[in-house]
Amino acid sequence: MRLSQMLFVTLREDPAEAEIPSHKLLVRAGYIRRIGSGVYAYLPLMWRVLQKVSQIVRQEMNAAGAEECLLPQVQPSELWKESGRWDTYTQAEGIMFALQDRQGRELGLEPTHEEVITTIAREMIRSYRQLPRNLYQIQTKFRDEIRPRFGLMRGREFIMKDAYSFDMDEAGMRESYRKMRDAYYNIMQRTGLAFRAVDADSGAIGGSGSQEFMVLADAGEDEVLYTEDGQYAANVEKAISLPADAKPSSFKKYEKLDTPNTPTIESLCKLLKCSAAHILKNVLYQVVYDNSMTVLVLVSIRGDQDVNEVKLQNELVKLAGDYGGRAVIGLSVPDVEAQAKWAAKALPLGYIAPDLRDDYIQPGGKNLAPKFLRLVDQTAVEMKNFATGSNETDRHVVGANWGKEFQLPKLVVDVRTAQVGDRAIHDPSQTLKSARGIEIGHIFQLGTKYSKAMNATYTSEQGEEMPLVMGCYGIGVSRLAQAAVEQSYDKDGIIWPVAIAPYHAIVIVPNINDTAQKETAEKLYAELNAAGIETLLDDRDERAGVKFKDADLVGIPYRIVTGRSLKEGKVEVVKRANHESQEVAIEQVVATLQDWVSQAVAR
Amino acid sequence: MRLSQMLFVTLREDPAEAEIPSHKLLVRAGYIRRIGSGVYAYLPLMWRVLQKVSQIVRQEMNAAGAEECLLPQVQPSELWKESGRWDTYTQAEGIMFALQDRQGRELGLEPTHEEVITTIAREMIRSYRQLPRNLYQIQTKFRDEIRPRFGLMRGREFIMKDAYSFDMDEAGMRESYRKMRDAYYNIMQRTGLAFRAVDADSGAIGGSGSQEFMVLADAGEDEVLYTEDGQYAANVEKAISLPADAKPSSFKKYEKLDTPNTPTIESLCKLLKCSAAHILKNVLYQVVYDNSMTVLVLVSIRGDQDVNEVKLQNELVKLAGDYGGRAVIGLSVPDVEAQAKWAAKALPLGYIAPDLRDDYIQPGGKNLAPKFLRLVDQTAVEMKNFATGSNETDRHVVGANWGKEFQLPKLVVDVRTAQVGDRAIHDPSQTLKSARGIEIGHIFQLGTKYSKAMNATYTSEQGEEMPLVMGCYGIGVSRLAQAAVEQSYDKDGIIWPVAIAPYHAIVIVPNINDTAQKETAEKLYAELNAAGIETLLDDRDERAGVKFKDADLVGIPYRIVTGRSLKEGKVEVVKRANHESQEVAIEQVVATLQDWVSQAVAR
Repeated sequence: MRLSQMLFVTLREDPAEAEIPSHKLLVRAGYIRRIGSGVYAYLPLMWRVLQKVSQIVRQEMNAAGAEECLLPQVQPSELWKESGRWDTYTQAEGIMFALQDRQGRELGLEPTHEEVITTIAREMIRSYRQLPRNLYQIQTKFRDEIRPRFGLMRGREFIMKDAYSFDMDEAGMRESYRKMRDAYYNIMQRTGLAFRAVDADSGAIGGSGSQEFMVLADAGEDEVLYTEDGQYAANVEKAISLPADAKPSSFKKYEKLDTPNTPTIESLCKLLKCSAAHILKNVLYQVVYDNSMTVLVLVSIRGDQDVNEVKLQNELVKLAGDYGGRAVIGLSVPDVEAQAKWAAKALPLGYIAPDLRDDYIQPGGKNLAPKFLRLVDQTAVEMKNFATGSNETDRHVVGANWGKEFQLPKLVVDVRTAQVGDRAIHDPSQTLKSARGIEIGHIFQLGTKYSKAMNATYTSEQGEEMPLVMGCYGIGVSRLAQAAVEQSYDKDGIIWPVAIAPYHAIVIVPNINDTAQKETAEKLYAELNAAGIETLLDDRDERAGVKFKDADLVGIPYRIVTGRSLKEGKVEVVKRANHESQEVAIEQVVATLQDWVSQAVAR
Repeated sequence: MRLSQMLFVTLREDPAEAEIPSHKLLVRAGYIRRIGSGVYAYLPLMWRVLQKVSQIVRQEMNAAGAEECLLPQVQPSELWKESGRWDTYTQAEGIMFALQDRQGRELGLEPTHEEVITTIAREMIRSYRQLPRNLYQIQTKFRDEIRPRFGLMRGREFIMKDAYSFDMDEAGMRESYRKMRDAYYNIMQRTGLAFRAVDADSGAIGGSGSQEFMVLADAGEDEVLYTEDGQYAANVEKAISLPADAKPSSFKKYEKLDTPNTPTIESLCKLLKCSAAHILKNVLYQVVYDNSMTVLVLVSIRGDQDVNEVKLQNELVKLAGDYGGRAVIGLSVPDVEAQAKWAAKALPLGYIAPDLRDDYIQPGGKNLAPKFLRLVDQTAVEMKNFATGSNETDRHVVGANWGKEFQLPKLVVDVRTAQVGDRAIHDPSQTLKSARGIEIGHIFQLGTKYSKAMNATYTSEQGEEMPLVMGCYGIGVSRLAQAAVEQSYDKDGIIWPVAIAPYHAIVIVPNINDTAQKETAEKLYAELNAAGIETLLDDRDERAGVKFKDADLVGIPYRIVTGRSLKEGKVEVVKRANHESQEVAIEQVVATLQDWVSQAVAR
């Protein structure tokens, strides 16, 4: 393509809306344009990058035996009600755009396609002889993000590859999952990005296990905890570890003390001159289930530890049935306004004990559980002679013990946040390190969550009706494209990995009015494209400096300049990544570039 | 691909939801599945057809100098308010799905992208040196159809290619339009479908001229009028013609007659023993503009002619400014309920004269024009000694004349429907014929409608700020795929044109337990694919009859059967289109197929 015939516009200034380098660069270099909050147009250069990424994804999916299809973006709410996710997605997380058509029927704009694919499988898969199967698509998805930001990283429209596998049993599912994990490794390697696969929380998708593929970058929204032996890596939402050992408490006897103005762990430690590990922290949460039932939750945890709300939510989902619900649609620390809706009297906030009486909850409240749901994190179970609240403002008790002053809650859970420096479970000599990552892929062992809810079964070889065992596998195609920039740029602009660059090479004519320069450039441009090197020609009537700056900004891997050395039959060839320059004989250019491109792309 | 490893399911029965052959066949052959009203999943075979069509479209668009991009599907209402189309699209035609995000901001799901592309052009195109440009995308679009039907033909989600050109002036726009028209001819020819390009109404898109590309098929929703000399073809919505000449009226003098029970033209002709061409018909319409203003419209037309509501609406849009509006959001013949909202007294329906008094309209009605808007179709202007209503039930007048008993309305318009048998305007010796068509493409000369409304300008060579002159060009990719089936099927199933068939060939093993059959099939399957012939292998453990039936239903152009003639070193090769069968030596199969495919695809 000739730049003179492209909609090619670069900007000198960073766009006001952009916070991170990749977002700034993609806008400045003319790859994307903001159309609305979290909504971008992919301009022609970006379209090519997205196609490159998609093509790699497609090839690896096909090689793994998956079949490409295309599923609807607008979907009837009925399907989501069958799976039980309509309320979670439209109310709780609220990330699904919902609308009504002109007949007043409810529709959702797809953030994910488990419901649709399960519907198709239920109609089309009848027999074990049709298994296993894996269907995938590459398509725009939608999320009504509260705070869209970082360009394509957290947009309201984004391109995903999502695949769904169907197997006869758990073993089959694990095999399908393994194939997809291998495909994901291949995809990530072929794109040329530094990445890490980590254990992950399965969240609203559900299932028994999942892994995320993280592109490592300082601007990543996710924190990854890992060990240097390469044996463990997990999203902090999911990470497990051994908490630091606590020294024995110095409180010798049980007593109640005046502790004025100590509503925080820090202030209490200071006053009592104790370690946070000797304090039992009792955190009050409020959970709302999809049947509108509100439950007050009291989590007791060792004072030097924090509650991981993702883990807590998972525990609360497991308990939903006890309250007649199926899903959690809200989890929060209740503020004054929220407390007013259920508290019978003022709460001793900052001084709560694990035995806070249930009569703090208004009796007979509609959709209100009459008793606290009491959970104890496993870090708190072994505590002895601890300090904790007294249920009276400005007073704490010290030297308390489970089984004496307080009853240990029956529900022991792991809801603590793993931290940098914690010892690893697989090898306590390893400690957790932290890195920032951009989640690019997420693969799930779903099991029978959707097939059971939506009655998608097959007939086994023994003639039994069995639920299909599913997996699902996502890759953020547009996010991957931006993550590549976030991982690879310099002060001059983008440095695309060759495999996903919009073009491999750009031929620059420094002076468009110099016939020799122009003719050589035209010849090389034609020959390179004919040889399969995707090449741009900068034939604009602009100064050479402008063209070089633009080429650097846009990040095309190889630049060929028909400049001064033409009289020796040579052109200048420059690698974008390191600005390494060399003179190459004109007749050697095509072979040289073919060599470089095939080395960079084939892995 | 091996059928044993595909999600390959065919149905014996026609689906209940399907009315036309192509819809039935696509569902039965496993190409599509209904997920909701007007919403379909494209299964793997269909995905391949869509890719084939898209690739042809893409190649021809690129060859014409257009650049591919991808635009947002969810869009802020602000852009549509700028162009003045928000109300028309969400209320009048009501075909745009509208929704609110969690911040309460209004969004639309894109049925078309003029607003977005004009926004991009306004920001990126500054100078005449950047012109002309043409951007296109291939993507799913949305329409909230009142009555989704015919599968992909009139769905609520569908795949479109839409292109937008930007030029300096009208002449440039016409050149861009010509290039696109040529590209469309190429596309249609390459897909192998019988089609016709026709003059068309520009509807809600607007602009000064447009053409549609119609795939000819009996089930087409559109009527095309054309002449056999090939010089004229138009959508009936847009078609013009010379109406049949009327013989002189036999009414000699003006008089009022009792005409009981003659509210229709037919009943009046019978009573008065006159031709319908001697009756002046006065049709009452009600139009609602986007500023909520209701106007009553009285259209006088020759009794043997019908009002074309598309043409009438276009005239009413031109008059919108007279009533403070910009767009028409409703046009209808008012029923009793509608009349009750504005009529001051009972209307003499069926007996209305052109001078129906304005005091039939309630005086001082809010958002109600106090006078009838009186239009006369050009067929009625020349009428003499005509019969018409008397504004009294069961009475008509005869022998009336304009300028005597009735005043000729000032607004003379062409709102008549052209009919089969009418004489053509370009050559009155030609008469109009009728055909049914499926609208596959529509190209528009938009002019400055959007650039002026949205202030998208460029600086001319003379330094003036000028509005960009635009064109837009759509092709229904998914509709084209189904139209191909509607045009080409037989009692056994689909007959795909080779260029857009999901696969070129299918190798069938009649008996999977016969080693020789299996081995030859595997060998041919591998060789054909290696030679670029996209080939399926039916290696299922099914009876041969089932396999042949499925292959016919699915419509793969060439079938290769490793059957009886194997012992002579031959296989049977069958053409799907005509069931023509021949024995081909095994070593000749690849060359034969290559020959057939390249002949069928290259045009």
